[in-house]
Amino acid sequence: MPNKTTAIAHSNIALIKYWGNFDARLRMPLNDSLSMNLDALTTETTVEFDDALAQDEIVLGGEPADEKTSARVVEQLNRIRREAKTKSFARVHSKNNFPSATGLASSASAFAALTLAATRAAGLELSERQLSILARQGSGSAARSIPAGFVEWLAATNVTSTSDQSYARQLLPPDAWDLHDVIAIVSRDAKKVGSSEGHAVVNTSPFLGERISRLPIRYHRVRRELLNKNLKGMGAEIETEAIELHMLAMTSRPPIFYWSPATVRVMDAVRQWREEGLEAYYTLDAGPNVHVLVEGKHAAEVANRLRTFADVQEVIVSGAGGGAKLSEAHLF
Amino acid sequence: MPNKTTAIAHSNIALIKYWGNFDARLRMPLNDSLSMNLDALTTETTVEFDDALAQDEIVLGGEPADEKTSARVVEQLNRIRREAKTKSFARVHSKNNFPSATGLASSASAFAALTLAATRAAGLELSERQLSILARQGSGSAARSIPAGFVEWLAATNVTSTSDQSYARQLLPPDAWDLHDVIAIVSRDAKKVGSSEGHAVVNTSPFLGERISRLPIRYHRVRRELLNKNLKGMGAEIETEAIELHMLAMTSRPPIFYWSPATVRVMDAVRQWREEGLEAYYTLDAGPNVHVLVEGKHAAEVANRLRTFADVQEVIVSGAGGGAKLSEAHLF
Repeated sequence: MPNKTTAIAHSNIALIKYWGNFDARLRMPLNDSLSMNLDALTTETTVEFDDALAQDEIVLGGEPADEKTSARVVEQLNRIRREAKTKSFARVHSKNNFPSATGLASSASAFAALTLAATRAAGLELSERQLSILARQGSGSAARSIPAGFVEWLAATNVTSTSDQSYARQLLPPDAWDLHDVIAIVSRDAKKVGSSEGHAVVNTSPFLGERISRLPIRYHRVRRELLNKNLKGMGAEIETEAIELHMLAMTSRPPIFYWSPATVRVMDAVRQWREEGLEAYYTLDAGPNVHVLVEGKHAAEVANRLRTFADVQEVIVSGAGGGAKLSEAHLF
Repeated sequence: MPNKTTAIAHSNIALIKYWGNFDARLRMPLNDSLSMNLDALTTETTVEFDDALAQDEIVLGGEPADEKTSARVVEQLNRIRREAKTKSFARVHSKNNFPSATGLASSASAFAALTLAATRAAGLELSERQLSILARQGSGSAARSIPAGFVEWLAATNVTSTSDQSYARQLLPPDAWDLHDVIAIVSRDAKKVGSSEGHAVVNTSPFLGERISRLPIRYHRVRRELLNKNLKGMGAEIETEAIELHMLAMTSRPPIFYWSPATVRVMDAVRQWREEGLEAYYTLDAGPNVHVLVEGKHAAEVANRLRTFADVQEVIVSGAGGGAKLSEAHLF
């Protein structure tokens, strides 16, 4: 068995959202989704299987992981052990370069990096598609952090669909389009309700069915404009898509509220800037932070404007990121 | 023809909302709605028909009304002239004791007071039901400001329904229940998009059908708990109902955004207070202000808390109000 392996993966921002599962256990989503990997947001994870260990050892950002997170990581290691036909426990150290659990999709980059590092450390050489399928089972959106650049994750919701049909693939490489995500961090607090809990209750929203039945129309429009690299052509759909995700959350039982006052303030500002001629569009993940999508030439201007907001704590500017990849620099 | 007539009417806050028309011209609503008149928010209107006038003269808060408002008032006067079989023009002076066009439903109290004052000034003696039907045609929610206290407005949406079947009636008199509305005024600016425009585009929201088809279940639950005077029993439904109104607005094409940062802050606070044991529930009209419903014994406490918010500009506390009524004190 090879030795210590380290992988790096990027977070991603969805243009068409993942919200709700067809099969919760396998994390097979209700709908196809589209995203862009975020070059500036990375998770780095080192994994080493060691026959001397009596259990998995999970360290995140230098601290032992809490029970809930550990359990989820161990589940993913179990999937990998089954594939690799090994019973060894693993040492896993991981760190993000950004605050976790604030809607910056830390679980996407985390489970993508973990999946690549752990499969290699266990002696497996999986294809991009196989890695995506496996990462998906750890955290749905992690499937999208495996390929590079602009990515689509296929849902595979037919009755006859199987888990190996729901994977992410590249639509455009990262250097094909100079799109930037200017992220207004309005809260560094951990979310009160995690995404997994949100996925679990989405079917209590009366509006889920209508959304899912109409989503293919939006999906194909945004996909086409993405391939055309036409931000203006997809902008209105992207904003509506973000609002719909939060509408589903706010109308679930119990309702889930992710917006903070600053979320509303920044969205209002983006709409105002656009009226003044600046082509910027917002989207939101399942959290309060606002992602402002602009062409690269406007990124610095938008970042400067966002930094003047008293309730924006930090601004992160990110271009399109690469896929999950191996690294020589180990964390331990 | 009698002389100068003055009427006073109260604004109302809806527990089940009016959002969207079955027949836009007649303002026949898509669904039944429930409301409470607000004792603290009044419009006072004096009307005098005068054969010497060459056109209607509309004065609001001491200033000549703008063109759009004048046109709407003239339309209502035309309806009344048709009923009264008169061609005289009228002098109309009206004033609110609260800021208009901030989502405090100024058009509800305004058209209720106008309808009562103008019909009497024109020599008509209409029943409460007839007044409600007529007020409705000026501004839908004005139908609910005609009866006193807690009110339901019947939609009458059958193919065979006629305008005279859509009217409001009392469910409980104002003194039957010590419910209070503590209103956090977070903006005194005029709304960017008026309610009439919102009603006109609601059918562009993909979620309207699902909402309308499910609303009777909520309606009957809230109505039952209202008759039981059980705030806790209706609270969760009322909050969801308010969110749904804004979800429809935010998912209309073009989307309409009424929330301000303070709207989110106050809603969050109310949910937090409730977790701490204070039975308070929010609702919202088509605007940024937050209405916090509490039993009378908690009204002062909630008002004091809301006054500590930097972005709450004013707090108005209101019990249940009476119906539209005549007054001896004329405005001119």
